[in-house]
Amino acid sequence: MNGKGILIVVSGFSGAGKGTLMKRLLEKYEETYALSISATTRQPREGEQDGKEYFFRTKEEFEKMIAKAELIEYAKYVENYYGTPKAYVEEQLNSGKDVILEIEIQGALKVKKAYPDTLLLFVVPPSAEELKKRLVERGTESMDVIDSRLKRAVEESDGMEEYDYLVVNDDLEICVEEMHQIICSEHLRTRRNGAFIENLKEELRGLKGEK
Amino acid sequence: MNGKGILIVVSGFSGAGKGTLMKRLLEKYEETYALSISATTRQPREGEQDGKEYFFRTKEEFEKMIAKAELIEYAKYVENYYGTPKAYVEEQLNSGKDVILEIEIQGALKVKKAYPDTLLLFVVPPSAEELKKRLVERGTESMDVIDSRLKRAVEESDGMEEYDYLVVNDDLEICVEEMHQIICSEHLRTRRNGAFIENLKEELRGLKGEK
Repeated sequence: MNGKGILIVVSGFSGAGKGTLMKRLLEKYEETYALSISATTRQPREGEQDGKEYFFRTKEEFEKMIAKAELIEYAKYVENYYGTPKAYVEEQLNSGKDVILEIEIQGALKVKKAYPDTLLLFVVPPSAEELKKRLVERGTESMDVIDSRLKRAVEESDGMEEYDYLVVNDDLEICVEEMHQIICSEHLRTRRNGAFIENLKEELRGLKGEK
Repeated sequence: MNGKGILIVVSGFSGAGKGTLMKRLLEKYEETYALSISATTRQPREGEQDGKEYFFRTKEEFEKMIAKAELIEYAKYVENYYGTPKAYVEEQLNSGKDVILEIEIQGALKVKKAYPDTLLLFVVPPSAEELKKRLVERGTESMDVIDSRLKRAVEESDGMEEYDYLVVNDDLEICVEEMHQIICSEHLRTRRNGAFIENLKEELRGLKGEK
């Protein structure tokens, strides 16, 4: 039917397992999905390549992108800019790929405003207890950090209703399949298939009266 | 998550293969779906049982059901009433089954008005030519009847945009799976999971501050 890709925003609490989920989805359906690459002014870390993990830009270059409206959304964290370049996303969508942006709620709502057809997915753990358990089991963070992440989750949970679907990350493989099914189904929405519908109507009118 | 079933209306052009599709879906996922049983005042045909194909009612009984608002929707065709009894549908929904109503667009829109959470699916053939081919190949109808069905399809196609999803019936098995996936995904909509979200928020607030 409609050959164009869907823009998908994936958000979720820290510890919900978004990263692993995205990795597995893209590995399993590499022909279907493209992960959006963000632009940033922060320094590349060891092993990071321009155009792979990020598009690395200077502050001047980034501000020029803002001025020329070349970003779908952007934000500044601790002196560094992060944003989603429009060109890469549109190129992927036009080639028929569903493009995934992994950003938090403020960014998600900006994207939805600019592209109303965006699909918003929110990844949740099966329960709050499970979220805490995962954060603790990582073992890499102090209790203070875990506590601030849980506090942040409370704030973020206020925006959950703005999303279209919940993706409950209990079993990874099941979750990947659910997410893939949600996106496949979304392609069949009538409002995403205006051209197919118009064409079918036209054809039907052409048949009428003919024997 | 939400344990309640979804009310699903399936419509589509005559010849799109709705009947075969429903039969296969219910056969394959009999634990998941229930087909709504209509009430009618028409006479039972050979082999038809009350409460199976239809709930057979007298005109007086049917009009009493209308007066007591016991029908989700009803219509009169050629002197006979046809309608959807509320009690059976709600009983199935409460038991967690997704209930399927196979009705045409006017009925579909009435159901959507009474139950805004209804999911509306429209079954289409891959093309208008294919629709005509299927009607011709049935071999049971005159060219005049086929012609009037195609004319009716033109009228019905005007309402396609009112539906949530298009289900393209090309290969039967693929189509059954697509329909099942659409419905499974629909269960994950945030707006169908208000209680789960509220509960998760509550739990998160409970964890906050605790170490």
